[in-house]
Amino acid sequence: MGVERVRAVQRRLSEAAVDAVLISHPANRRWITHVSASDASPSAHAGWVFVTLDDAALVTSPLYYGEAIHEAVGVRVVLAANRVHETFADLVRQASSRRVGFERGWFTFQNHADLTGALAEWAAPVEVSDLVEPLRAIKDEDEVASIVRAVALSDGALTAFFDEVRPEITEREAAWFLEAYMRTRGSEGVAFEVGVATGVHSAVPHHKPGDAPLGIGAPIWIDIGARVDGYCSDITRSFVLGYPSDEYRRLWQATMDAQKRALETIAPGKTGRDCDAAARDHLTEHGLGELFTHSLGHGVGLMIHEGPRLGRSSGDVLTRGMITSVEPGIYRPEWGGIRHEELVQVTNNGCAILTRTPNVVSI
Amino acid sequence: MGVERVRAVQRRLSEAAVDAVLISHPANRRWITHVSASDASPSAHAGWVFVTLDDAALVTSPLYYGEAIHEAVGVRVVLAANRVHETFADLVRQASSRRVGFERGWFTFQNHADLTGALAEWAAPVEVSDLVEPLRAIKDEDEVASIVRAVALSDGALTAFFDEVRPEITEREAAWFLEAYMRTRGSEGVAFEVGVATGVHSAVPHHKPGDAPLGIGAPIWIDIGARVDGYCSDITRSFVLGYPSDEYRRLWQATMDAQKRALETIAPGKTGRDCDAAARDHLTEHGLGELFTHSLGHGVGLMIHEGPRLGRSSGDVLTRGMITSVEPGIYRPEWGGIRHEELVQVTNNGCAILTRTPNVVSI
Repeated sequence: MGVERVRAVQRRLSEAAVDAVLISHPANRRWITHVSASDASPSAHAGWVFVTLDDAALVTSPLYYGEAIHEAVGVRVVLAANRVHETFADLVRQASSRRVGFERGWFTFQNHADLTGALAEWAAPVEVSDLVEPLRAIKDEDEVASIVRAVALSDGALTAFFDEVRPEITEREAAWFLEAYMRTRGSEGVAFEVGVATGVHSAVPHHKPGDAPLGIGAPIWIDIGARVDGYCSDITRSFVLGYPSDEYRRLWQATMDAQKRALETIAPGKTGRDCDAAARDHLTEHGLGELFTHSLGHGVGLMIHEGPRLGRSSGDVLTRGMITSVEPGIYRPEWGGIRHEELVQVTNNGCAILTRTPNVVSI
Repeated sequence: MGVERVRAVQRRLSEAAVDAVLISHPANRRWITHVSASDASPSAHAGWVFVTLDDAALVTSPLYYGEAIHEAVGVRVVLAANRVHETFADLVRQASSRRVGFERGWFTFQNHADLTGALAEWAAPVEVSDLVEPLRAIKDEDEVASIVRAVALSDGALTAFFDEVRPEITEREAAWFLEAYMRTRGSEGVAFEVGVATGVHSAVPHHKPGDAPLGIGAPIWIDIGARVDGYCSDITRSFVLGYPSDEYRRLWQATMDAQKRALETIAPGKTGRDCDAAARDHLTEHGLGELFTHSLGHGVGLMIHEGPRLGRSSGDVLTRGMITSVEPGIYRPEWGGIRHEELVQVTNNGCAILTRTPNVVSI
């Protein structure tokens, strides 16, 4: 599988008008090499991948070398005894590469100065973009298996939480319960900081858990994701504890129906815009369009947000094998919010929902 | 305090030969503005800070605006209704700035293209480096107070762990115990992934916890850090469960003595090189210099690794108010490793050790 990924990158070199490429973005590097080493930042990096038409190598420092040798698939691992950019430049010269692409969305001016300094006059670094990302958007069997395992962990956490939940539990305590459940059962950290919001806090799409008790009858949403083999899951459930108001029921159901419309729309050939519009139009028909303040969804994989984008202006075309969130949400300031999120896999003629936790309006 | 930090940045503008600067590095942005919003990456950023001689503003998107308004100290918060770089360019024009610095170690080619596009021909973006970092290296009272609270959490976790530890606990279980202790008592996540290594694993300075039981008589080290108000702590303890071998005792003590030599060296005016040499020379005298494969230490603050660097080739000059780790370590492949790490604050004439957990060779 590693070899196939390298070949897919190699096939894109001529399109990008380069004869070699430097991949430094952490998720792209991991996808090509299977090496899990993670970076603090573009400046403290776990290595650069060098891909030419007939070679692929990960150049890394002694700190990551042992792990890289153990994990790498489809690429050579080259130890940078001194500095990564110098060893990388040696590979460029050995391969007689003259045009070396680098990723404009991740490469910093410092990286560029280091590389050009080491290359001297040998080769010209050239900006490239979206070279690996479109490949990553379509998941192979191994990737789907990892995501399904991550989904099982987040589903399990929600189910266990619903068994335990009491109105006096605070957002922060709930968040910790959910994280501890996933982490102690094999999740590598969390896919993103656990989101728990109650009452007026739930009107803030990215609210951070605080000391508010969940309470009875307040709009609550929980947004969590686990991580397995580097791959994320992502799920949101919205509910109240006790009896929901008629207004809550109405908005909850409208958002659920909007999601259903989007799920019915998703299929190969549809654009991100088409899917977003299906949900948004439904909410607009019910006078709620203005409250849907974010996009419908995003691809999920080694990154919690990746391609395809499902939003108002997204021309991304869905393809079999993509995995994306579908998460319409409405937020009424000073009242609260509701978001329903499933993770789905695009199939031959529609989509399969991976998330399993039932949607219930009250607990 | 926020205002003082802005003034300190403003004083550096002329030195950098710019009349405004764009600060996008997350720790630098947080240090100037006190806004805690964090970034996934240089491309998904929580805002850009604009500083001129007489103004300071954080330009941020609706996603972060509410939080930013609430937290900001010493800077205006400007909402980017559309895209951050466009609103930022408006500020540049309003301020009549013609030379705008950007951080070469964090700014990507995509960021640069966005900014130059929005500025059109108005102003020239100029690379700057280490504009804010040297300021961040010297901690004010509030910063010290946060770090001391983080230290108390990591000390507390180690103490609680030493009360509970049994040889059958695995590295992973130990790591989770330590993380859960800190997280449930106020640590914002962890400063870095908890390190626990036993036996031959301890010979790998950055070993990730696995399923090995700690065991009796094996070399063990634990490396943890908590986070409070964004500020990190960092501490390592090395020990065996049960009776240490004579060889372990010898190496443990040699490393302890090396640390002592470094601690006695640290004072204003000394360089990172001086401090590193004090520990390294001691180990070399005992025939262990080759096993000390990393640097002596690093500054700790909003980032777990920041200035000053205490290493073989570091000319960084220590100043009162700096906070740094002091962590000599020796690693013998196929046998194990020992690292002793304290966090210290540089004082008027030496240093004060902030970490409190006793160093014991066996538990």
